[in-house]
Amino acid sequence: MPPPNPDWVKALVPSGPHGPELLEQERSKSNVNVNQLAEFLHTSQVLERNAKILEILQAHPVFDKSQNYFNGRIDKIKAALARAKALRQLSIKHQWSQEEYTAANDLISEPTPYGLHASMFLKTLQEQGTPAQHKLFLEKAQNYEYIGCYAQTELGHGSNVRGLETTATWNQEDKTFTIHSPHLTASKWWIGSLGKAANHAVVIAQLVINGKSYGPHPFVVQIRDLKTHKPLPNIHVGDIGPKFGYNTMDNGFLLFNKIKVPHINLLSRFSGVDPDTGKYVKPQNPALVYGTMTYIRSTIVLQSGSVLARGVTIAVRYCAVRRQFQDRDSTNDEHGENQVIDYTMVQHRLLPLLAATYALHFTGRAMLRLYNENQKRMANPSSATSSDSDILPDLHATSCALKAFSSTVAAEGLEVCRRACGGHGYSAFSGIGSWYADYLPTVTWEGDNYMLTQQVARYLLKSARGVLAGKPASNDISRVLAEFIARQDIGAAFDILDNDEDLVKAFAWRVAFLTFEALKHRDEEKQSWNSLLIDFWRLSTAFAQYLIVKNFYETLQDETTKSSLDSSTTTMLRSLFHLFALNYLQSHASEFFTSGASTVRQIQLARTKRTLSLLKEIRPHAVKLVDAWKFPDWQLDSSLGRYDGRVYEDMFHRASEVNPLNDITFDPYPDSSVLFQGDKRPSKL
Amino acid sequence: MPPPNPDWVKALVPSGPHGPELLEQERSKSNVNVNQLAEFLHTSQVLERNAKILEILQAHPVFDKSQNYFNGRIDKIKAALARAKALRQLSIKHQWSQEEYTAANDLISEPTPYGLHASMFLKTLQEQGTPAQHKLFLEKAQNYEYIGCYAQTELGHGSNVRGLETTATWNQEDKTFTIHSPHLTASKWWIGSLGKAANHAVVIAQLVINGKSYGPHPFVVQIRDLKTHKPLPNIHVGDIGPKFGYNTMDNGFLLFNKIKVPHINLLSRFSGVDPDTGKYVKPQNPALVYGTMTYIRSTIVLQSGSVLARGVTIAVRYCAVRRQFQDRDSTNDEHGENQVIDYTMVQHRLLPLLAATYALHFTGRAMLRLYNENQKRMANPSSATSSDSDILPDLHATSCALKAFSSTVAAEGLEVCRRACGGHGYSAFSGIGSWYADYLPTVTWEGDNYMLTQQVARYLLKSARGVLAGKPASNDISRVLAEFIARQDIGAAFDILDNDEDLVKAFAWRVAFLTFEALKHRDEEKQSWNSLLIDFWRLSTAFAQYLIVKNFYETLQDETTKSSLDSSTTTMLRSLFHLFALNYLQSHASEFFTSGASTVRQIQLARTKRTLSLLKEIRPHAVKLVDAWKFPDWQLDSSLGRYDGRVYEDMFHRASEVNPLNDITFDPYPDSSVLFQGDKRPSKL
Repeated sequence: MPPPNPDWVKALVPSGPHGPELLEQERSKSNVNVNQLAEFLHTSQVLERNAKILEILQAHPVFDKSQNYFNGRIDKIKAALARAKALRQLSIKHQWSQEEYTAANDLISEPTPYGLHASMFLKTLQEQGTPAQHKLFLEKAQNYEYIGCYAQTELGHGSNVRGLETTATWNQEDKTFTIHSPHLTASKWWIGSLGKAANHAVVIAQLVINGKSYGPHPFVVQIRDLKTHKPLPNIHVGDIGPKFGYNTMDNGFLLFNKIKVPHINLLSRFSGVDPDTGKYVKPQNPALVYGTMTYIRSTIVLQSGSVLARGVTIAVRYCAVRRQFQDRDSTNDEHGENQVIDYTMVQHRLLPLLAATYALHFTGRAMLRLYNENQKRMANPSSATSSDSDILPDLHATSCALKAFSSTVAAEGLEVCRRACGGHGYSAFSGIGSWYADYLPTVTWEGDNYMLTQQVARYLLKSARGVLAGKPASNDISRVLAEFIARQDIGAAFDILDNDEDLVKAFAWRVAFLTFEALKHRDEEKQSWNSLLIDFWRLSTAFAQYLIVKNFYETLQDETTKSSLDSSTTTMLRSLFHLFALNYLQSHASEFFTSGASTVRQIQLARTKRTLSLLKEIRPHAVKLVDAWKFPDWQLDSSLGRYDGRVYEDMFHRASEVNPLNDITFDPYPDSSVLFQGDKRPSKL
Repeated sequence: MPPPNPDWVKALVPSGPHGPELLEQERSKSNVNVNQLAEFLHTSQVLERNAKILEILQAHPVFDKSQNYFNGRIDKIKAALARAKALRQLSIKHQWSQEEYTAANDLISEPTPYGLHASMFLKTLQEQGTPAQHKLFLEKAQNYEYIGCYAQTELGHGSNVRGLETTATWNQEDKTFTIHSPHLTASKWWIGSLGKAANHAVVIAQLVINGKSYGPHPFVVQIRDLKTHKPLPNIHVGDIGPKFGYNTMDNGFLLFNKIKVPHINLLSRFSGVDPDTGKYVKPQNPALVYGTMTYIRSTIVLQSGSVLARGVTIAVRYCAVRRQFQDRDSTNDEHGENQVIDYTMVQHRLLPLLAATYALHFTGRAMLRLYNENQKRMANPSSATSSDSDILPDLHATSCALKAFSSTVAAEGLEVCRRACGGHGYSAFSGIGSWYADYLPTVTWEGDNYMLTQQVARYLLKSARGVLAGKPASNDISRVLAEFIARQDIGAAFDILDNDEDLVKAFAWRVAFLTFEALKHRDEEKQSWNSLLIDFWRLSTAFAQYLIVKNFYETLQDETTKSSLDSSTTTMLRSLFHLFALNYLQSHASEFFTSGASTVRQIQLARTKRTLSLLKEIRPHAVKLVDAWKFPDWQLDSSLGRYDGRVYEDMFHRASEVNPLNDITFDPYPDSSVLFQGDKRPSKL
């Protein structure tokens, strides 16, 4: 640790007006009801729960964050392993539910090396194991005696699961499977919790019986000794090395040299091998697995709002504290420098993202409602007999479109927030860079964002074919498509600037236009699938934007919203809704008027006058609108985003008094007793 | 170091077809002349020079890169200091010129802690010092006895230099200046080479004489002892801590508690204090300083092409090696998986960036030509008497517009390249992440990219006023604006799809339209400067795009280009030109047709048929077009971007045999002899 600052430095304060005064001013001039809005976003139960958990975590020395930004990879992993362990212990001590455990993880805000044990390993054993397998594997796993991971992706195969190279060959003579890596590219890769933490893995391997392949199946394989934690013979396992972020996670590699596992290690709730005959037993209900993927995507959609909100919170607060330049039109030198957030260029970068945090959150909620509704129907199959009640395809397509779009918006929005903080945004102490870097894999995993758009296009094309074939419109997208067909000759005349419902309709119209255009290319012009991928990506993006705009609109119309919030707060939410929608209307302008969803003139008006007036309306409430997200300072771990605005004191303290590079033992010129004098006296190297 | 891989792992190879075969195929099917194109880009002298320097660096153990991606901050700084020192020694030994020294730095590809000594410190002493000051400071600095930095930015002030808080107060009685930091926010901050390396600083402080401030001036201040390298009394100095990138640089902070320096320490070639009278001596030629900023921005423009080209090289090669999924329309299972680069969605992301690497490079060259022309005119003032020869305003505005645009394109393009590599793009071994992170400050420094756009708008508005006032059109932009005025009533009818010159004209037309629109808002409607910032940013972006499209076009028209390159190669460059221009035409479509520079139909055609056919034309030549950039593997330091395509072998080797986390001494469960068994036996923490 560096020595404390000298007394004359301790006596220095930032030049005024100070951060705390400026944020106090911001908060006093807005009538947004922060606590009410926070409860609307999170519920009071959740806010109270989080406060309790925060207190417990802050009291525990292992969760001290002060070295986080300084630790190298090895120290990061060591700290993360110790934290994961402590978290498990606290979880037992306080009898935390799964939600409380997750809330604690969110507050700690770093990927944990037990992460994949607690999620995918346990879930897979649970969902795909038989009762006998639960007894054999799940109990020990729940007990943390087995620590596991989910080993699917390989060095040579990511998205294309069917192309996995690892094999599991059935041996009828001793009723075992031989797990084997035939090539280097068969090495399992990117597997979270595998590099250091796990002693077991669910390995996804191609099941081979009598030389015939039956596709990828899940096998439980022990990989490390339970006492020594050394890899077992003929297993090569380790950490895959540093990454752009996520460095508290021990993503690992894993190779097998003909490892035998008994028959029971193939998780066989849905499919398997008859041990007596060696015959393959076919899967019964693949829809269940489908459902799990959809659930994970839905949670990504919900999280995207708060993921982005962290960056927006930091940037908005800092831009209200930071002052730079006088107003160019000001004739009065005494006015002092402007708060950076007063510049329209800064507002133009940050406030649409502030709007997006709410928009994504409301859509995430709607997405989870749809998921839960589907779960209910699946649990009660009698209601699922009529064809119009099958919402699984809707659920699948909307989760794909929204996952792809919302995680892109969150990731790219965080980088915009970082840059909006100017030079200091680049400091680790901004708290945005590491958060962004850790979030980035979300655009690739659980379906690469570009790949997913093909699923969405397939769904929309199929719906469009249904509409053209005269099938009754049983869901929202069919109604949108049918309405477009009915009205396309008379055209649309949406009052996008003054009528909220019309604004939503303009987004719907554009989706329908792009869908039928793509359908024409595919079905009439017989264009190749590959040549349409760019169109499909545009289409999926348009669909996602429509869903988000619609969900935001519906949230505003909802009676619960109106009864939960003061009118001044709902007015602000409505301005955010407009800003969100008009922002995309401008950035995708050409799609809106080539489709006839709006006129060139409307978009020009939206871009100039309307946007400026919205920015002006929202500006005074920006700080309170981020306050409502209620991120504790401990969670943000940001000098720039402190609730109290003491930005410069915090930056200076971390740099000068915590930064280990300022330890007096650090010697920049270790190999000569005096300073390096290049050409005169080249010292040894 | 981890143990070597077991023999059975060493025996594994990737599944085929292998990277080397695939890249060999790519290279054999394109008729682009790589060496010819490389010489056209770099000249054969530069290529030979680089090869010689590369050999020297590779032979020196201090430049071994194998631990770079694993080192934590402290080891990074230690290695960087040792390398900086060795580089200086090699530079003396081999009598390297400044260009050769820079080339060596480029090959090493990491910021060096002596970077700001070698650039800003020496340059400032040279340019702003008197002969007496050169004798006193510069000679020792050139000798590396004094190691210095350029201390301008403060904790509370970045862009606004006039707002700096550090003071230098003239003391007539003993003819000294007192350098002082009155507030915490006065602390110098972000200063490269200051944190650990420097013993001197050029400190930019507000000169105060008799209570009156004369604005920021440069003072030479010793900050550390020359023998012990300890900070001098009443100076608080250190490293500002980790950053999103640039962690081999010791960016520092610096506070002064009433430090006295003699009169000679104010660098006074242009302005100063008369030591006898205590009177201020006014600056004579501020244009010279202006010129330096312009030079730095011009080099940023030139570099942006090759900065981006590194990412594009890596992504294009890896996407040619990586195979994933079969073609959806393919009925033949035997075809195997597609090379990822065959997907139009991947082409749509990467090939416009490939085009941008060339476009930015050609514009950078044009920018430096303009700079050199201006230097000549300034050196020969007789030719500068006629008003039309004053190209300084053009130089300033174009350097601002192009710096802002090209560094944004390069930074954001690198992230696109990283994502186009799929999951493996996130690995440190991709070589893109760290390169991107180190490049990012470029969008903020030497003028924040958003701030700079105001300078551009001011220039364009002034030019437009001149045109409206009937001043003769003496430069390119005046001609563009005058032509727009002359033709605006009859309108434009540019054949953007078939006529290259018209394509350039469409970009010019849009700039003129946006300029006169902004002028109307400002001069007729008297809108505030602040309310126009978003328009100004759009305008500056349009201007930059016009310049780049025009320079690309002119490069293709140039006789030297035609005589240097085979026609097959120039044909390819022309396709890149079209792709570059049409890509921005689409992404900014609404500006093109609201201005009347193109029709909606033209843009639709550009988006659909034309773009797809350009992607198809360029695709077979992509690998050779990146090869022409001639990055040695040692420079790229990327598993994915290897020239030979041995992607998976390299990834696996680095992860398993170099990664220190796989050292057998690393113990993930250090505090219990057996594996952690959570609830049964909570071990101590």
